Amino acid sequence: MISKAELAENGPARGTMIMKPWGYAIWERIQSELDARIKATGHDNVYFPLLIPMDYFEREASHVEGFSPELAVVTHGGGAELAEPLAVRPTSETVIGDAMSRWIQSHRDLPLLLNQWSNVVRWELRPRMFLRTSEFLWQEGHTAHATWEDALEETLRMHAVYDDLMRNVLGIPTLLGRKTDAERFAGAVYTYTVEGLMRDGKALQMGTSHHLGQNFAKVFGIDYTSESGQLEFCHTTSWGVSTRTVGALIMAHGDDSGLRLPPSVAPAEAVVIAIRPESVDAAEELAQELRERGLRVKVDKDTHASFGRRIVDWELKGVPVRVEIGPRDLAAGVVTFARRDTGEKATIAASGAADAIVDVRDSVQETLFNEALYRRESATTDVERASEIEGSGYFRIPWRALGVEGEEVIARDGYSVRALVTADGGVPGPDDEDLIAYVAKAY
Amino acid sequence: MISKAELAENGPARGTMIMKPWGYAIWERIQSELDARIKATGHDNVYFPLLIPMDYFEREASHVEGFSPELAVVTHGGGAELAEPLAVRPTSETVIGDAMSRWIQSHRDLPLLLNQWSNVVRWELRPRMFLRTSEFLWQEGHTAHATWEDALEETLRMHAVYDDLMRNVLGIPTLLGRKTDAERFAGAVYTYTVEGLMRDGKALQMGTSHHLGQNFAKVFGIDYTSESGQLEFCHTTSWGVSTRTVGALIMAHGDDSGLRLPPSVAPAEAVVIAIRPESVDAAEELAQELRERGLRVKVDKDTHASFGRRIVDWELKGVPVRVEIGPRDLAAGVVTFARRDTGEKATIAASGAADAIVDVRDSVQETLFNEALYRRESATTDVERASEIEGSGYFRIPWRALGVEGEEVIARDGYSVRALVTADGGVPGPDDEDLIAYVAKAY
Repeated sequence: MISKAELAENGPARGTMIMKPWGYAIWERIQSELDARIKATGHDNVYFPLLIPMDYFEREASHVEGFSPELAVVTHGGGAELAEPLAVRPTSETVIGDAMSRWIQSHRDLPLLLNQWSNVVRWELRPRMFLRTSEFLWQEGHTAHATWEDALEETLRMHAVYDDLMRNVLGIPTLLGRKTDAERFAGAVYTYTVEGLMRDGKALQMGTSHHLGQNFAKVFGIDYTSESGQLEFCHTTSWGVSTRTVGALIMAHGDDSGLRLPPSVAPAEAVVIAIRPESVDAAEELAQELRERGLRVKVDKDTHASFGRRIVDWELKGVPVRVEIGPRDLAAGVVTFARRDTGEKATIAASGAADAIVDVRDSVQETLFNEALYRRESATTDVERASEIEGSGYFRIPWRALGVEGEEVIARDGYSVRALVTADGGVPGPDDEDLIAYVAKAY
Repeated sequence: MISKAELAENGPARGTMIMKPWGYAIWERIQSELDARIKATGHDNVYFPLLIPMDYFEREASHVEGFSPELAVVTHGGGAELAEPLAVRPTSETVIGDAMSRWIQSHRDLPLLLNQWSNVVRWELRPRMFLRTSEFLWQEGHTAHATWEDALEETLRMHAVYDDLMRNVLGIPTLLGRKTDAERFAGAVYTYTVEGLMRDGKALQMGTSHHLGQNFAKVFGIDYTSESGQLEFCHTTSWGVSTRTVGALIMAHGDDSGLRLPPSVAPAEAVVIAIRPESVDAAEELAQELRERGLRVKVDKDTHASFGRRIVDWELKGVPVRVEIGPRDLAAGVVTFARRDTGEKATIAASGAADAIVDVRDSVQETLFNEALYRRESATTDVERASEIEGSGYFRIPWRALGVEGEEVIARDGYSVRALVTADGGVPGPDDEDLIAYVAKAY
């Protein structure tokens, strides 16, 4: 589907990916929606260097342990061997932590709320397009706070922002919870995750938000003078969402005919196809009316190509609403539209078509979400013990019935704990007990 | 100024740069304006990998010669030495040319119009913030065409887009022309340049657009079947603008009090300062009125800081219009504003303030451009021979009086030919003769 919908293809170096126009346009939509939310919550965008001295990684013990096996290392520059090798960033906690230690002096400098859009490199043993590529694009937020509670609030705020993005833009129902110790980010105290269940019953981690406690603050000397004049270490957070989300769209909504894009994330929410040259003007007019109503619209005037081929191509690309205008439609004063989600087709009067298509667009957004939600609920099973875990989908099991040992046992069959939630399905706080583990096979 | 205005600071690895919130926000403004123009001219954004196999560079002889000394090379990945080293991209002609050879089959696939926003690494011997950093951010356009003429038209189209951006957004008068053979891009047939003259009389190359002829097409096999069924090589172009443009703003408009930003590129076109807590509401109200008129506005409510310090900081950051509201202004029904370009201050009735400030904003945009234009014209001297070239600014000299040998002579004193133009100042076509060389010292 990735190839047929012209989303991406493999790059020349192992595990790398070329994002083609349609795939990249979907990422631009995600960026635009997420960037607005990141700015609305008070964060400033910045840009830190790609190349980081190796010794930066060696300062935080669990961080280096987590990332060392994945580093790409620059050893030569400008025709000579470097005195000190440089890592291509796998993530930027270290270099940003170092800068924070210079930028923060007093409690008045807090909170410091930064974000960057960038590329990162993590050497992948089993690369897979969009889901696990050696280089990927993402945003990484990095913040510093005066107290543990402030940092927790920030971690959960961005967790909620990601939840909003995934549900309301990508149309994917979310599982919100905390990672187990085995699954958390290298260097974090708590990792909160937003998980999606794909059509094949496997889970995908779509975004994570980390409470880093004082781990990086102590290592990089990120401290501040409090109101009472005491020198205190900061509490920091980091959080990221990547091009993996494009993979989530493919795996959560795609069908046998290709991609099915929720309108909010579609580069074109509707395509108006002029079946014959004489209907091009009417197609352009309708497109203009739709644009005036705020929709992103493409007009397909490629009348020398076969009509069947054009329909198949727009279906592959997942455009939510397809409108067709031919000479007979023109004569009858109607247009025909097809929904990509249900395949439903209808013919309506041309006069009220624009408003009707806007309604259809909204309905597609809702229907794709509801369909995914229904699928997930049907694929979620309550079990009491690890031995009952078999097959696909989510398995809900009391964490005290599974535990760290059980987690190791199910790992042998390829299962992992995707998230821990409270008994009533909420995101657990530090003191919550009797947690429920959601277990699944995952990408 | 870069440090005081909090634009950027040095990164940990040599020659790298950390872009701080204000510096990055300026780059985001440039990106937003340029991206809209790139899309409006029919280009699609894509993303190609950062890491490129070394042998890709070795295929085009002058390209490898130009870039080899500047490459950063990854030799280790995933904890092991790589069988084939990977270059961190210094530019993407090679990897994109390789993809074009797969994507283009027929004349119907042409033109292929691509652009990417990315980071590139070129090892710098004499790094300088924003102007020459080992890593920089840019957009690189890459296009393929059926004919030499089509590629030339594209090269000049994007040259004109850059001219528009520099003049109308960055407020910098441009010198438009062609590079000499000595100065052109490694692998290009023609390089067209947009040059700016900085306040110190040195020139800065702000953007370039390259006609690559069939050089890359032949090396990477970018060919197509023509309408008559013949297999033909494409003609390709590439063009780029980078974070160097932020440096151009600093050097072209800055003064002793800091940056002076043209409103079109300013993250905030106006700042409304509440002098005391009791004027915060009035400041917020005026800001809202300005936003309704389409302006980007910040409100400074930091009333516990010294008023003098706040003014100095906004001047350093170069915000075009500063509005001050204090208790006495409130009582008198007035507001005071100051223009960053001229320093002029005035007090006006609060009732019509928003409209007046919009006019001031427009005037600042115009004045900064005119000031820079006047400065450039005053700093341009006509000379007849190379020996007359001494001092700063532009020297206009007939190319036949300078020539390739003269170009080598003036290089010893640090001068270079910035651009060749026609006798009447136009961009030269392939057949124009009697060209004029603009000579200057350059960054």
